Amino acid sequence: MSARTLAELAAELGGVVVGDGSTMIRGVAGIREAQPGDITFLANARYSSHLAETQASAVICNREPREAPLPLLQVDNPYLAFQRIVRIFRPEAFRPPPGVHSTAMVAPDAVIGEGASVGPHCTIEPGARIGDRTVLMAGCFVGGKAAIGEDSVLYPRVTLREECLVGARCILHAGVVIGADGFGFAFDAGRYHKVPQVGNVVIGDDVEIGANTTIDRATTDSTRIGDGTKIDNLVQIGHNVVVGRHCIIVAQVGISGSTELEDYVVVGGQAGLAGHIRIGRGAQIGAQSGVPRSVPAGETVTGYPAVPQSLFKRISAYMQKLPQLFQRTKALEEKVEKLEQHQKESVR
Amino acid sequence: MSARTLAELAAELGGVVVGDGSTMIRGVAGIREAQPGDITFLANARYSSHLAETQASAVICNREPREAPLPLLQVDNPYLAFQRIVRIFRPEAFRPPPGVHSTAMVAPDAVIGEGASVGPHCTIEPGARIGDRTVLMAGCFVGGKAAIGEDSVLYPRVTLREECLVGARCILHAGVVIGADGFGFAFDAGRYHKVPQVGNVVIGDDVEIGANTTIDRATTDSTRIGDGTKIDNLVQIGHNVVVGRHCIIVAQVGISGSTELEDYVVVGGQAGLAGHIRIGRGAQIGAQSGVPRSVPAGETVTGYPAVPQSLFKRISAYMQKLPQLFQRTKALEEKVEKLEQHQKESVR
Amino acid sequence: MSARTLAELAAELGGVVVGDGSTMIRGVAGIREAQPGDITFLANARYSSHLAETQASAVICNREPREAPLPLLQVDNPYLAFQRIVRIFRPEAFRPPPGVHSTAMVAPDAVIGEGASVGPHCTIEPGARIGDRTVLMAGCFVGGKAAIGEDSVLYPRVTLREECLVGARCILHAGVVIGADGFGFAFDAGRYHKVPQVGNVVIGDDVEIGANTTIDRATTDSTRIGDGTKIDNLVQIGHNVVVGRHCIIVAQVGISGSTELEDYVVVGGQAGLAGHIRIGRGAQIGAQSGVPRSVPAGETVTGYPAVPQSLFKRISAYMQKLPQLFQRTKALEEKVEKLEQHQKESVR
Repeated sequence: MSARTLAELAAELGGVVVGDGSTMIRGVAGIREAQPGDITFLANARYSSHLAETQASAVICNREPREAPLPLLQVDNPYLAFQRIVRIFRPEAFRPPPGVHSTAMVAPDAVIGEGASVGPHCTIEPGARIGDRTVLMAGCFVGGKAAIGEDSVLYPRVTLREECLVGARCILHAGVVIGADGFGFAFDAGRYHKVPQVGNVVIGDDVEIGANTTIDRATTDSTRIGDGTKIDNLVQIGHNVVVGRHCIIVAQVGISGSTELEDYVVVGGQAGLAGHIRIGRGAQIGAQSGVPRSVPAGETVTGYPAVPQSLFKRISAYMQKLPQLFQRTKALEEKVEKLEQHQKESVR
Repeated sequence: MSARTLAELAAELGGVVVGDGSTMIRGVAGIREAQPGDITFLANARYSSHLAETQASAVICNREPREAPLPLLQVDNPYLAFQRIVRIFRPEAFRPPPGVHSTAMVAPDAVIGEGASVGPHCTIEPGARIGDRTVLMAGCFVGGKAAIGEDSVLYPRVTLREECLVGARCILHAGVVIGADGFGFAFDAGRYHKVPQVGNVVIGDDVEIGANTTIDRATTDSTRIGDGTKIDNLVQIGHNVVVGRHCIIVAQVGISGSTELEDYVVVGGQAGLAGHIRIGRGAQIGAQSGVPRSVPAGETVTGYPAVPQSLFKRISAYMQKLPQLFQRTKALEEKVEKLEQHQKESVR
Repeated sequence: MSARTLAELAAELGGVVVGDGSTMIRGVAGIREAQPGDITFLANARYSSHLAETQASAVICNREPREAPLPLLQVDNPYLAFQRIVRIFRPEAFRPPPGVHSTAMVAPDAVIGEGASVGPHCTIEPGARIGDRTVLMAGCFVGGKAAIGEDSVLYPRVTLREECLVGARCILHAGVVIGADGFGFAFDAGRYHKVPQVGNVVIGDDVEIGANTTIDRATTDSTRIGDGTKIDNLVQIGHNVVVGRHCIIVAQVGISGSTELEDYVVVGGQAGLAGHIRIGRGAQIGAQSGVPRSVPAGETVTGYPAVPQSLFKRISAYMQKLPQLFQRTKALEEKVEKLEQHQKESVR
């Protein structure tokens, strides 16, 4: 673990120090848990109130002027600066040694790249290819003719089924299942008949996939995940889905078969997308939304069924006033009845 | 890979050719990805517009008259015909060899059926029974006295806990957990006490269970899944649930304890069912619905809380007009006030 | 399996017999499946109607007076009494033998407690510590410097990542993943940059975690689960979440990063909690709710977005009457127009 002055860190990150640049920084921590010697960060305005109490020796924040009882390191993107500082103070710890563990079962014709690490109890089937420096931790399964690019990491017990492809610099967390059969059945004569799922899954470079997430293989052709897309835990991605580049898919989202996400789409946690729809570039889907139809590029939608965010907020506010609205309507009805009564009488 | 004329395929499938029956078919693919020589299919009307552009040499469709620039193979059930054609052009690929892998740990008194395959790093505990020709891929766990019927397939890393039973011709995808303890605790003196879950899970024949799905064992007695039922990925089925025959349960559904589904029920993705309710034969539950009470046979319900589908659609449409409704009510109130004012004055 | 008279059971449980105390009890079962010789229980009033038909020889119930065709064992907490009776009639079955299985890979400097059991194909990395009498079933992974307390059970294929800590008497069901990276990315120059997740997960004593549930490690510091908390299957708990003691988190719940639950919180199935909020002691969150902001202690909330339970029920009831409300408003508008028309005419 190295130590730096705040001024040195500012130089590395392209930031500005407000306060004592000679402050020594030895570590990095959250705003509430930081100890003297730590630098912390303020990325979420909700935590501004913690600034007064933190024991940190400095705080990374954006370039807005602010009062604080400790030195500031002002940058354009505090979260990005934090990411770099973590790398400085906590270089990556344990890395499994290269080579194939004696308990791993590797088919004779599988190709294991230079410097790759295949952990205990892994199974690698015929024709599979593991890229250079890629790490498979304990208990991973790589099916026949599947392939993984360079510098990827598979945490324990990942299943990559036959013929599925994973790019370079990907991270697949524990329990991920890539390439299970898509959910397709033809109904006939009182029962469901399995439609063979003979496609595969193709995952780009720099993709991260969360623990126990499942991505199904295509019926024919490929289910695709684009470069740079990040997927959280327990997400379900159906057969023949196409996800673009640099998308964010938060935990427990479900995407039904054949739906397409263009680049830079963000899907909030637990949202569900119907099948055979298209989500335009940069669209944002609110958490827990149910999306029954296509969403234009750049739109933000929320709700069940999902509507534009501003409409959703108004609807939500009005829904809470529904009981009053019924009362108001009842009052109106009584008044109108009286008016009508009076009118009848005055006519008579 | 075989090649057939379109007329030959029509004869096999009981279909009718519209166009050149001598067209040679060498493969099968999705409508957008198909190449010359492929047959494709049109099961979803949304894709009709792709017919003009597909490079496929023929298309499977229903018996409705239609214009198309390529030969048609008309059948009663296009998706079923597609299923059969996939089997013709893509016979099942890799099948693990029969026998017990040298790294598998099989209890001496476990029974492994004839032609069964037990893959690397599997664990089979005392008294378990594996049916003839059943395949356990790498890393599966079969607990004490558990049993699996004939011709079933367990993909990598399936966990089948002690005393649970799986029928014949079942498919359990990677990461499935059958027979984990039901979620039952008795609260007393400020803390929860675990209620032992001493029942099991009983799964019928021809059941398919998706990746990372969990089906809990019963408190006493059995959690049951009926013959022919198909369950998607990441589904949660609680203790003592009884699912009938030929049901469809889409991804990420949750079914709470002791609820019963009769035969032919369909539950859409991410729906949640309360405990101790009954879903009647053939009922359909919309995606993301929350179902707090029993549903009669044949009914289609949607929403949170779930109501009949037609009512849900009307409510959804009206919800989007709520902001206007509040405005209309406000306008009415103003008008009525003026009317009242005027009436008072005219009385005076 | 022992046999007891009903009177003996009543003495053990602090209950009262109504009926023949000499009735012999030989087993325990659900109310519908019970056979003569079994005792059953009535914890849910919905099943009262089954009392007339059960073949059980006695029933555990609360102390309310009731008519029944069979002897009653009346207690304060029927579910708790049932829990104790299950322990009497079904003592725990199979317990893996102590010791390290020959196929397990245990780092030389890992510490395995006395009487602990490490099953087939487990991997235990450098510096890890397994408590006395703790059981790791087949295929578990314990990362570097991770630790588990005494008398815990890890079912097959649990992944406990490096430096994460689990207390005593915990139960982790099959497929659980503890300590996968939190979902944190800094966006810059058109792409997402991974924020290293260098914290850990700390789980207290007497915690139970359901199958395939995922609990992410903190960015810095710790994600925490308090003593006695019970978590169901397929739950997602984000980085830096803090869950108090004796909470109940039902299946498929998602809790976003940095949110805190105080003690005795109950979260219903499939509910989603936003990040950076606080749920007060004893609060209850309804199934499938979406909780966008903090909830005060003791409050019960439901809905999407969540509101107090009583308001939610009124809103739900009114929503189903929305179509009528629009009709009533339309009728009012027509009447008011007529009144206005008439008024104008009478003025003229």
